[in-house]
Amino acid sequence: MSDLPAQWTHEPRKVLRFNPGDKVADIDTDSSPGYSDGKDGSEELQDERNERFAGLQEMLYANGRAGDRRSLLLVLQGMDTAGKGGTVKHVVGAGNPQGIHYTSFGVPTEEERAHHYLWRIRKALPAAGDIGVFDRSHYEDVLVVRVHELVPRDVWEPRYDEINAFEKELVDSGTTIVKCAMFVSLDEQKRRLSERLERPDKYWKYNPGDVAERKLWPAYQEAYQAMLDRTSTDYAPWFVIPCDKKWYSRLAINELLIEALKGMKLEWPPADFDVEAEKKKLAEA
Amino acid sequence: MSDLPAQWTHEPRKVLRFNPGDKVADIDTDSSPGYSDGKDGSEELQDERNERFAGLQEMLYANGRAGDRRSLLLVLQGMDTAGKGGTVKHVVGAGNPQGIHYTSFGVPTEEERAHHYLWRIRKALPAAGDIGVFDRSHYEDVLVVRVHELVPRDVWEPRYDEINAFEKELVDSGTTIVKCAMFVSLDEQKRRLSERLERPDKYWKYNPGDVAERKLWPAYQEAYQAMLDRTSTDYAPWFVIPCDKKWYSRLAINELLIEALKGMKLEWPPADFDVEAEKKKLAEA
Repeated sequence: MSDLPAQWTHEPRKVLRFNPGDKVADIDTDSSPGYSDGKDGSEELQDERNERFAGLQEMLYANGRAGDRRSLLLVLQGMDTAGKGGTVKHVVGAGNPQGIHYTSFGVPTEEERAHHYLWRIRKALPAAGDIGVFDRSHYEDVLVVRVHELVPRDVWEPRYDEINAFEKELVDSGTTIVKCAMFVSLDEQKRRLSERLERPDKYWKYNPGDVAERKLWPAYQEAYQAMLDRTSTDYAPWFVIPCDKKWYSRLAINELLIEALKGMKLEWPPADFDVEAEKKKLAEA
Repeated sequence: MSDLPAQWTHEPRKVLRFNPGDKVADIDTDSSPGYSDGKDGSEELQDERNERFAGLQEMLYANGRAGDRRSLLLVLQGMDTAGKGGTVKHVVGAGNPQGIHYTSFGVPTEEERAHHYLWRIRKALPAAGDIGVFDRSHYEDVLVVRVHELVPRDVWEPRYDEINAFEKELVDSGTTIVKCAMFVSLDEQKRRLSERLERPDKYWKYNPGDVAERKLWPAYQEAYQAMLDRTSTDYAPWFVIPCDKKWYSRLAINELLIEALKGMKLEWPPADFDVEAEKKKLAEA
């Protein structure tokens, strides 16, 4: 049974799912697929769905403590200013830090470069009952690496298949993967970068390198297209998130998380002890 | 300048600080030191102070990204049901998962036992700009280890000094340490354990071993006394938190975190780039 709020005319996991043949160039970053309402009221709905997410997250965590091996991995991949950080703060942030493990994957360190590109990824995978959040991910190794030709084609080319095999292994071992490709228009990106330059409390988010990356958008577009075409699988599909409207992208990702957690059919774990005997013991203790 | 809410007649960091000579046996676990009001209105105040904490946490994180090496470490130590988990959820949970790293220290794994007892602790220390949260900590090695005689006295005895030296090193390298010893009465503990046995959504929090530990309270009391006497230092003092009133213990720890963050005198980090030049570059990009 669905508890999808009425504002959603279509399930986000269906309407946002990347389908073979979909073109990155055609993404309307300012749209709000499946959502019938506008910004008004979205904050209230967000609060409500934050709570729903937090409840399900606690239940996943409880099951992890009780021996269930399952976990969830949220992969946030997207251009600068697409809203990865805001999603972590306003969506994932509703959960309990006890069961949330956030990792940001920046330029690899010297130690990381000395290892296989999945080494640092594996180290950050969520434990049983946890939600792992990847702010950027192993997909950097077929995006920035490809665009900047940091390694030759014959090195990055096999990675699509390797990543699929890696994710298959994760899914088989009980990890549900929610992959969000977040897209923002170049105009909206410019607006957001400008804002960072106007507000001293946002300077820290500004990286001069981001401006140069804008010129590489055609190459990134091609790399994103290849990524979506080749790594959107039945077991770990990509969701394409239009991000010009922050309120929409957050609601959408929140809902994808809720849907993924509901798909696990979680219940509170049964007692692994004799409840009545414990009550008696406790009364006497 | 203090923005301590009017309900606080005394600063928590002063009124809750452990002083030489204080006795664990004398702690009134049902009291609310320094706080003039009751439970009514505490939820509203908690929301307000959650926001204040979140704002300061973001500023710490921003500074970390900008090269500031400082970090904060919250150590939660206390008997079962004292409210460590609830504090993580309702106090720390207000922060942004981007900059919060939670670690729970349970029974050491085989690998952990093969290392020095501080090995797993060091691995979990917060990075620059982060808040690390220890749910139990290295103090287990002078509490449960001492009470259950898991190692001989001549092994645990030197640990008080070792821990002081370890924490001195942390503080010297820029980590502010907030250590909270959380105390709940045996009666209130029984009530909370009973609740876990009454509610199927709480079974997962119940551990049959907790009941047996109750009988060891006198030994634990002695171990807590030694811990407080010997490891409450000028650079890393202990705060004693009465925890029979959940609303109070959460407000108190929230305030201790705010005070610690304010003590860092954080500002938004200045731009490490030429703002005007970037504006120009961006306009053209």
